[in-house]
Amino acid sequence: MFKRLCSAKDALGLLLDRCQPLEHTELQTLPEAAERVICGDIISSADLPSFNRAAMDGFAVQAAETRGASISSPACLKRFLPLRTGMAVPEGFDAVVMLEDSALRGPILEVTAPVHPFRNLARIGEDIRRGDVVFKEGHRLRPPDIAFLAALGQERAEVYARPRVAIIPTGSELVVPGTRELRPGEAYESNGLMARLYVERWGGLPLEQRTVQDDPGLILEALESKTDADMIVVIGGSSVGEKDYVPRVLAEAGQLLAHGVRVHPGKPTAIGFVNGIPVICLPGYPVAAFFGLYLFVRPALKKLAHLGDAVPTISARLSRKIASRPGYLSLVRVALKDGWAEPIMTTGAGIMSSVARADGFVIVSEAREGLEAGGMVEVHLIE
Amino acid sequence: MFKRLCSAKDALGLLLDRCQPLEHTELQTLPEAAERVICGDIISSADLPSFNRAAMDGFAVQAAETRGASISSPACLKRFLPLRTGMAVPEGFDAVVMLEDSALRGPILEVTAPVHPFRNLARIGEDIRRGDVVFKEGHRLRPPDIAFLAALGQERAEVYARPRVAIIPTGSELVVPGTRELRPGEAYESNGLMARLYVERWGGLPLEQRTVQDDPGLILEALESKTDADMIVVIGGSSVGEKDYVPRVLAEAGQLLAHGVRVHPGKPTAIGFVNGIPVICLPGYPVAAFFGLYLFVRPALKKLAHLGDAVPTISARLSRKIASRPGYLSLVRVALKDGWAEPIMTTGAGIMSSVARADGFVIVSEAREGLEAGGMVEVHLIE
Repeated sequence: MFKRLCSAKDALGLLLDRCQPLEHTELQTLPEAAERVICGDIISSADLPSFNRAAMDGFAVQAAETRGASISSPACLKRFLPLRTGMAVPEGFDAVVMLEDSALRGPILEVTAPVHPFRNLARIGEDIRRGDVVFKEGHRLRPPDIAFLAALGQERAEVYARPRVAIIPTGSELVVPGTRELRPGEAYESNGLMARLYVERWGGLPLEQRTVQDDPGLILEALESKTDADMIVVIGGSSVGEKDYVPRVLAEAGQLLAHGVRVHPGKPTAIGFVNGIPVICLPGYPVAAFFGLYLFVRPALKKLAHLGDAVPTISARLSRKIASRPGYLSLVRVALKDGWAEPIMTTGAGIMSSVARADGFVIVSEAREGLEAGGMVEVHLIE
Repeated sequence: MFKRLCSAKDALGLLLDRCQPLEHTELQTLPEAAERVICGDIISSADLPSFNRAAMDGFAVQAAETRGASISSPACLKRFLPLRTGMAVPEGFDAVVMLEDSALRGPILEVTAPVHPFRNLARIGEDIRRGDVVFKEGHRLRPPDIAFLAALGQERAEVYARPRVAIIPTGSELVVPGTRELRPGEAYESNGLMARLYVERWGGLPLEQRTVQDDPGLILEALESKTDADMIVVIGGSSVGEKDYVPRVLAEAGQLLAHGVRVHPGKPTAIGFVNGIPVICLPGYPVAAFFGLYLFVRPALKKLAHLGDAVPTISARLSRKIASRPGYLSLVRVALKDGWAEPIMTTGAGIMSSVARADGFVIVSEAREGLEAGGMVEVHLIE
């Protein structure tokens, strides 16, 4: 039995208190800086455009000389320069006349419509000026942002380091896939692989990963050796059974802040820290581990990485009622079809096929006892 | 002037007709297969669990022997086996009795509550059976799916090849960033970099990229040499100016299906094909190029890659009215704040800072003449 169950919100709060946005930074080349978060304001070192740039094919002119021009009474210019879109409008000219409004007669340009100063050109610094803030600290660099920095002549960007995440799958029954056939009672390690893929996707850097046997000494060694990690995720052995050593070892090696969370599936979850590093212990049942990644690892990782943690959602109508246990946060897998969310009925936290068939999940709050059919729900899409 | 303007919908239709989902496939290791699309049904080669697995710490028993057991009259069993969660329940046993419902008295197990057959255990094949379909053709493998395949002992998956995308930035004014300082009239190449990052993000494989001068011969050579591409994206030189060679060269080398699209920004867009390969020609103005990537390259690439092309959206209330030109599909950058979408007012397709400040964009249909302040809009989030 768990000594004291904690709400999902409280467990997450205890975890997030221990996770501070990382301070260390690294200099990355522009393509590598994509999707990363900048660690200070980026100031433009150039004017963009860096020159008055023709916005049309036409002729550079002095706007004043076109005053009053019309088809019946064209202005006749001696000083002009043919230009194509994008070319520099040289000193001494301040506008571009479109081809349609002009005709070349030997050395004379006839202009049939007046232009205002700076017409049909992009002025120096119109997009951004040297010294202006391009992006503020905390901005995630998207592809057009990377392009913008390249256009400004920047080759690198200083970004926050990716959180380093140690993933420790535990269980004497686990066999690394591809190494050998299973013997009875064994299973291929898969939760650690899932965790690694999500950590990468959510902006973290998974550290080298090794499966650990159900042995208190080995678990302790694994926990204490991850001194270069910003977060540790242990999977399996997190419950209250005889061989569930992880919470006990964590309590000895560091501190156990919560053990047992009112969430279904996923009650055998523990939160703590060791050597100042936040530790999340997830159950080995794969569906519970999956939800634990979403509920705890994702927001903690996003906070460390200076990233927002909103999960993409879609609204849908519930096709059948959902049962849930009051007092427990319930996570229900659903399949989406034509605007309907179809609950995938299964009680087993070990049934991976239920996640395979799901497009997302619905969160039923502790205050509810299930959800009625026909109601609108927010479906969190499985990334 | 464009000879004939085409609607955005028609231009996209012409393009998508030329893009068929790729047929070639490749075998990938499991971690590498993440986010890829499987090219045939995956059939389970194993039962999962592969044995009757204890779902609790307790004792394996024969359920029949516990019939009628109670605290006052416990069943006394000689045949039993202590087990921990996850262990195999051997032949000859068909249920697990919880620790709470049992007591060991020397060689005898006293059971104080009856168990039904298969109680407290996960039966062989309960999750999936050998021969069952795990995932259907066309399924994108998410992290839990990869984990599921690993659990089934699978080491690889056959997936559709990533579409190979040739990106050709054109423009004699373009300088590759990092090579040298700009001279007047020059600009750093940035659109090609943006295109490359988006192609990677959207599931494509960008081919090696080289900037091409405004020269019909060089453009022809570039177009014709991309014989290994599944799609070609040319950026710049797509309008009707003197040096806008791209559409003319495309018409000669292959076929020009559309030139000039009623979309703002982005009118100078062309669609065609060369050597059977679809070609998308985008304007060099960076904001127009950005929207061209979203409007044309993204759905075409997603179709080639067997992927869905829904852009994530969020509903927001428009803080100010948007003006738009009827008959043109208008793309309006917006910043999001507290549920409001604030239009970023700029007319320039060359103003990259307007995208830098935007969180998303609103699409105003051809039938509308702008949108009123205060109305709800769907904001397409910039990825």
